[in-house]
Amino acid sequence: MVDEGFRTIWLKPDDPAIVQIIDQRRLPHDYKVLDIRTWQDGVAAIRDMAVRGAPLIGATAAWSLYLAAMHGDDADESVRQAARELLESRPTAVNLRWAVQRILQLLEVAAINNDLADIIRADAEAICNEDIEICLGIGRHGLALLNEISRRKSGATVNVLTHCNAGALATINWGTATAPIYLAHQAGMDIHVWVDETRPRNQGSQLTAWELAKNGVPHTLIVDNAGGHLMQHGQVDVVITGTDRTTRCGDVANKIGTYLKALAAFDNDVPFYVALPSTTIDWSITDGVAEIPIEQRDGREVTHLCGVLNDVAGTFRTTAPETPVCNIAFDVTPARLVTGLITERGVCNASEEGLAGLFPDQATV
Amino acid sequence: MVDEGFRTIWLKPDDPAIVQIIDQRRLPHDYKVLDIRTWQDGVAAIRDMAVRGAPLIGATAAWSLYLAAMHGDDADESVRQAARELLESRPTAVNLRWAVQRILQLLEVAAINNDLADIIRADAEAICNEDIEICLGIGRHGLALLNEISRRKSGATVNVLTHCNAGALATINWGTATAPIYLAHQAGMDIHVWVDETRPRNQGSQLTAWELAKNGVPHTLIVDNAGGHLMQHGQVDVVITGTDRTTRCGDVANKIGTYLKALAAFDNDVPFYVALPSTTIDWSITDGVAEIPIEQRDGREVTHLCGVLNDVAGTFRTTAPETPVCNIAFDVTPARLVTGLITERGVCNASEEGLAGLFPDQATV
Repeated sequence: MVDEGFRTIWLKPDDPAIVQIIDQRRLPHDYKVLDIRTWQDGVAAIRDMAVRGAPLIGATAAWSLYLAAMHGDDADESVRQAARELLESRPTAVNLRWAVQRILQLLEVAAINNDLADIIRADAEAICNEDIEICLGIGRHGLALLNEISRRKSGATVNVLTHCNAGALATINWGTATAPIYLAHQAGMDIHVWVDETRPRNQGSQLTAWELAKNGVPHTLIVDNAGGHLMQHGQVDVVITGTDRTTRCGDVANKIGTYLKALAAFDNDVPFYVALPSTTIDWSITDGVAEIPIEQRDGREVTHLCGVLNDVAGTFRTTAPETPVCNIAFDVTPARLVTGLITERGVCNASEEGLAGLFPDQATV
Repeated sequence: MVDEGFRTIWLKPDDPAIVQIIDQRRLPHDYKVLDIRTWQDGVAAIRDMAVRGAPLIGATAAWSLYLAAMHGDDADESVRQAARELLESRPTAVNLRWAVQRILQLLEVAAINNDLADIIRADAEAICNEDIEICLGIGRHGLALLNEISRRKSGATVNVLTHCNAGALATINWGTATAPIYLAHQAGMDIHVWVDETRPRNQGSQLTAWELAKNGVPHTLIVDNAGGHLMQHGQVDVVITGTDRTTRCGDVANKIGTYLKALAAFDNDVPFYVALPSTTIDWSITDGVAEIPIEQRDGREVTHLCGVLNDVAGTFRTTAPETPVCNIAFDVTPARLVTGLITERGVCNASEEGLAGLFPDQATV
């Protein structure tokens, strides 16, 4: 699956007025391709999490703006309106803002609105191609870390723990946290992944386990509660997660529960790495806990779950109907708990100096 | 519900050959009383978690030995055989061992085997009555801690976070971690409980939320991943959990994930208390991480969940059918992360000195 051809979003081959995505809400029970025909469809796909993962959210926003330019009476105005609604669809991931702003800049340079859709289409394709290259860059730098662990263990199994899905499904291909894992597996390393279930939406058990299985990577599903015990008992060599937003000082917003794993890793001297494209860095903020807006989502995500009974998939309720719920989607892991950031340009300390050292061109913004 | 009359285990009023329990696997969807007619039924109820919670497991073992004495051709031998199998049914909770050993001592003193069932019955009743008194003792000592927090907050809402179910359902009545909460609520304190869902068996969302609702205690269900974020943002005043086994030095084995909450509490200066009857102290061991046997359970508990679809309860599979799973039931929280232990005799430091100070009679064993 993770090969040249795999994509999580693409233009329908015989109809360039339709963007297609994998409906990630139905995995692993059902593989279904969803048509995105309007920018409103794109907003809904992001908001309802048919697509998720910071890089894929950004790419979906770019393709939605392409559809806005194509269908609007006033392409320019249509793109601006779509941009406003896209920015509201998910508050935490910074790639969304990055992609929207990148496309909006094209409005300035596009002299003739008639060509706007073509111009945006080319840039949406570029965003996707760049994301693949970025993920492969992250993969190569992360692979060096895994090689070092494998050498230290004399080739014994390298056990990686990951939380949520920062995999191929969260990007265009390869993933961020998973890119080093896929490259290591393809290079013949003995590697095994502990997959956090990732409540409430179970991206670990439903997406990460699915794509690791498709690619033949040995893995074991655990509940989110289990990682600390495994680390206490030496069963985790390294933690690698993704991130939805990283501050210029290296604080990391990621799926709720990431902070707890970082605390356990720190307490047990297990290296804790965060893999990220530089597009997830928010250079405008420093203090993640205080400054990153944390999305609260529908409590139904906690009380209800997608599952299969007698070969029929459905959404069932696991709690009493009246149970009050709070559903916080992300938490912030302070930089002090992060061993290093794996970016497309290399691995650096989770600090302002570390990030500015790798991205001097962006750090001054 | 939590009043003089509530019990989680009792002798059937019109038939003293039948022990009755609430089938906790069906809550909150269905309240059903289960008949325990033989000691083998008792072993199954413990192993399959129709009853759970360290104190209730101990009481169920005592009542199962009563049934063994009643039905065996050789009452003495029947009790010994039942004791052996009961001890194997759950490895981590120490109350099970404590209750079985207490009953086995009766074999030594019972001169005439004919009376054995009556003698064991009286002791099983005593174990249950003592447990209620112990829980009320824990409640009163814990209430003093909550009163202090409430005073410091000038009567504003006291937010307690708890993990798993150390409630009335885990004991005979009142619970351990919940006893202070119930007493505070009954005394009119403005108290609110964050209920950890507690994967994989969801004792939080299915049992703790159920009993707090029945008793009118304000509460909010969260996923296990969320507690760290809430603590970072000052939304948790105190954590109180139960324990299945406590070492003489204050290390605490409890439901998997407790360790992660303790780390987060420590990192955010939130007091982390463990409520326990002294029956859960294992005076024979010191190092919890190294010495407490940790139960691994069927992976199906992770991949399948009990839920309701169209008003019909069923067991749903949430993962792909072939996903490999590891299901660790408990973890150990080192004493250094525990602010204090709330026992029936008072609150002490989680240390050998602390425990020995409260239980000098037992510490020398």
